[in-house]
Amino acid sequence: MIQPNHHFIELPGSYLFSEISKRVAHYKQNNPSASVISLGIGDVTQPLIPSVIEALHSAVDDQANQETFHGYGPERGYAFLRETIATRYYGALDIPIDPEEIFIGDGAKSDIGNIGDIFSSEARVAVCDPVYPVYVDTNVMAGRAGRQRVNGLWDRIVYLTCTEENNFCPDLPDDESPVPDLIYLCFPNNPTGAVLSYEGLKKWVDYARENHSIILFDAAYEVFITDPVPHSIYEIEGARSCAIEFYSFSKRAGFTGLRLGFTVIPKELETAGIPVAQLWNRRQTTKFNGASYLTQRAGAAVFSEQGQAEMRQVIQYYQMNARLIRDGLRASGLQVYGGQNAPYIWLKVPDDRSSWEFFDWLLDRAQVVGTPGSGFGPSGEGYFRLTAFGSFEQTVQAMERIQALFQSSH
Amino acid sequence: MIQPNHHFIELPGSYLFSEISKRVAHYKQNNPSASVISLGIGDVTQPLIPSVIEALHSAVDDQANQETFHGYGPERGYAFLRETIATRYYGALDIPIDPEEIFIGDGAKSDIGNIGDIFSSEARVAVCDPVYPVYVDTNVMAGRAGRQRVNGLWDRIVYLTCTEENNFCPDLPDDESPVPDLIYLCFPNNPTGAVLSYEGLKKWVDYARENHSIILFDAAYEVFITDPVPHSIYEIEGARSCAIEFYSFSKRAGFTGLRLGFTVIPKELETAGIPVAQLWNRRQTTKFNGASYLTQRAGAAVFSEQGQAEMRQVIQYYQMNARLIRDGLRASGLQVYGGQNAPYIWLKVPDDRSSWEFFDWLLDRAQVVGTPGSGFGPSGEGYFRLTAFGSFEQTVQAMERIQALFQSSH
Repeated sequence: MIQPNHHFIELPGSYLFSEISKRVAHYKQNNPSASVISLGIGDVTQPLIPSVIEALHSAVDDQANQETFHGYGPERGYAFLRETIATRYYGALDIPIDPEEIFIGDGAKSDIGNIGDIFSSEARVAVCDPVYPVYVDTNVMAGRAGRQRVNGLWDRIVYLTCTEENNFCPDLPDDESPVPDLIYLCFPNNPTGAVLSYEGLKKWVDYARENHSIILFDAAYEVFITDPVPHSIYEIEGARSCAIEFYSFSKRAGFTGLRLGFTVIPKELETAGIPVAQLWNRRQTTKFNGASYLTQRAGAAVFSEQGQAEMRQVIQYYQMNARLIRDGLRASGLQVYGGQNAPYIWLKVPDDRSSWEFFDWLLDRAQVVGTPGSGFGPSGEGYFRLTAFGSFEQTVQAMERIQALFQSSH
Repeated sequence: MIQPNHHFIELPGSYLFSEISKRVAHYKQNNPSASVISLGIGDVTQPLIPSVIEALHSAVDDQANQETFHGYGPERGYAFLRETIATRYYGALDIPIDPEEIFIGDGAKSDIGNIGDIFSSEARVAVCDPVYPVYVDTNVMAGRAGRQRVNGLWDRIVYLTCTEENNFCPDLPDDESPVPDLIYLCFPNNPTGAVLSYEGLKKWVDYARENHSIILFDAAYEVFITDPVPHSIYEIEGARSCAIEFYSFSKRAGFTGLRLGFTVIPKELETAGIPVAQLWNRRQTTKFNGASYLTQRAGAAVFSEQGQAEMRQVIQYYQMNARLIRDGLRASGLQVYGGQNAPYIWLKVPDDRSSWEFFDWLLDRAQVVGTPGSGFGPSGEGYFRLTAFGSFEQTVQAMERIQALFQSSH
């Protein structure tokens, strides 16, 4: 008799965003004339840039003619895109990455979710707290998480607490903690918007090398960086022998609906004497058939000179929203983090309220929706996330409402 | 210290197509003027149909405007596509499938590869021999295959032998065989081109229900069916409680470069009292972010009236090639299978030669490339696969050469 993967059953449902939807729907039902603005959204809202649109139309035309038709592509991605990334993206950062070290995928979420396939199910995992839930959930599914405690944490996962005290930059595990084999780091961070300095990231690279751990570095938000902090983990000496980097076109170029990302596995990176890239290549050639040809053409267009210029404008639009939110919240007397190098603004909930209490209060009094920090893990309790992905007009309006609310309530 | 998934290390490299490339390259080097024709190809060669091209251009334009821009889609696919498949595809077959039972993915290879995530790693697997290697390799990776024997077979996998003796239709496991929990069936079959009759498939559905097994039914080639045999496993009574169906747009509509497929999990299907659809939904929402919006729009266009008519022409083109190959081989006195309801022609190698001996002989004497049957498993030894995906002109030429070769050598 067929049995399920029992680890799936241990995994609780993913209730954060459905709970938010439920509360918003309930509020709208009771207040039918209310105009609710969501700054909880984690998706881009601006259309694709002209260079990408042009590349897509041209790629569609390729598919209409036998001479230019593209069927199955290489599972690891077309050379034209891997070479573009190596020269235009890593080249601009002065990081030597060989196109052979780049694996094109259909998005960072898939690659980050699937990378676990190639590692031992006994591997011990470390994640930040608060955290993007995919890092935890995929490891629960793989049986690496152990049992869930009453507080919601899993007993085989090493949690790296990120709070005001450490400026949301995780400290190395202390001597009492088990040494993690796989360390998930995402900087600029979702949800806190924090960044790691060169020294801050170097500390982790050194730790991973000393302990033969692998860092899974999620660089999904690097395009929002404005301060002199690392965009890629390979800017840090030694990272090539201990780190895999995941990159997404979703936030860089608005590809959430097109699906494109890539994973870098340097040649030096080995586990038990086996090149990690060889394991990932075997995984991808067996369980994946490449990203869409159209999307790959579009991805290359993002890195053209014209594409870069157009993209910069879109990013500036979101950065302006982020600044508006940060300034508005500060003017309201709130403690605010992030938003400087990330599309996420992380605020400290005032007056010792819980994240969900603040959610309800903000919805009721300002008709603004955000995301309760506790939804990202216990250390997120007492915090609240707003995002810069709304329209400029709605962001302005939301901040006016919040400022008015704080003026009236103080 | 981080350890790999050791099952990956047990898995030998995938050498079939690289070995073919190597031998062809070697031949061309020694015979630079030879014009080699490949009928080994498993990819479509005809361009996309006009309806699909139009839908793609229109979807690209959607992405250029804020009002019509589509970001993250639902991980399980857009309702417009799931409803189209339910009404236009399953509706035409008179099979009631709820759009909620359909999960859109980026291709059948991904879904078939990833479905194992939701089942126990102790589950016992049955596959046909010969077989599409993905079914075996993904289970080796998941630790379900046991150890590889000297003959290349894995000791925990139940092999269902498909040879001339049973007309390439697998017999039920005998009483001495362990009962498989997961049964992979692909009909029309790759590589043999065989089909199962209604009775032949009913036998497996009954077996699965009796034994609480799940059939993983790969319907990738159904569009090539011309005889009255089942297109979908859900044409068989009882299949809803024991079968998952995988469907691909690759062969139906030439989407190998676009990436689209879907998986059907009926509401009735459970494992240990848990709806299988719920497990798969959790897997997909955690490790996948949906197929490209463009591709999903293109997929819906395939099922428009105009799209169906255009598609039928392309399929007829490949079917004509298949007929040419079958007739040509038979005229040469060969024993030929498949090609009637599938793009694959499976021939019995004459004169007791091995599959690879025949490969070398055909390349040397007719400059035609096919795929040695032994590459699909031990029961494929002594067989050879040709495909209908070449151009008409090259297929004609290849068959002329083969017929001339057999005339001269007899």
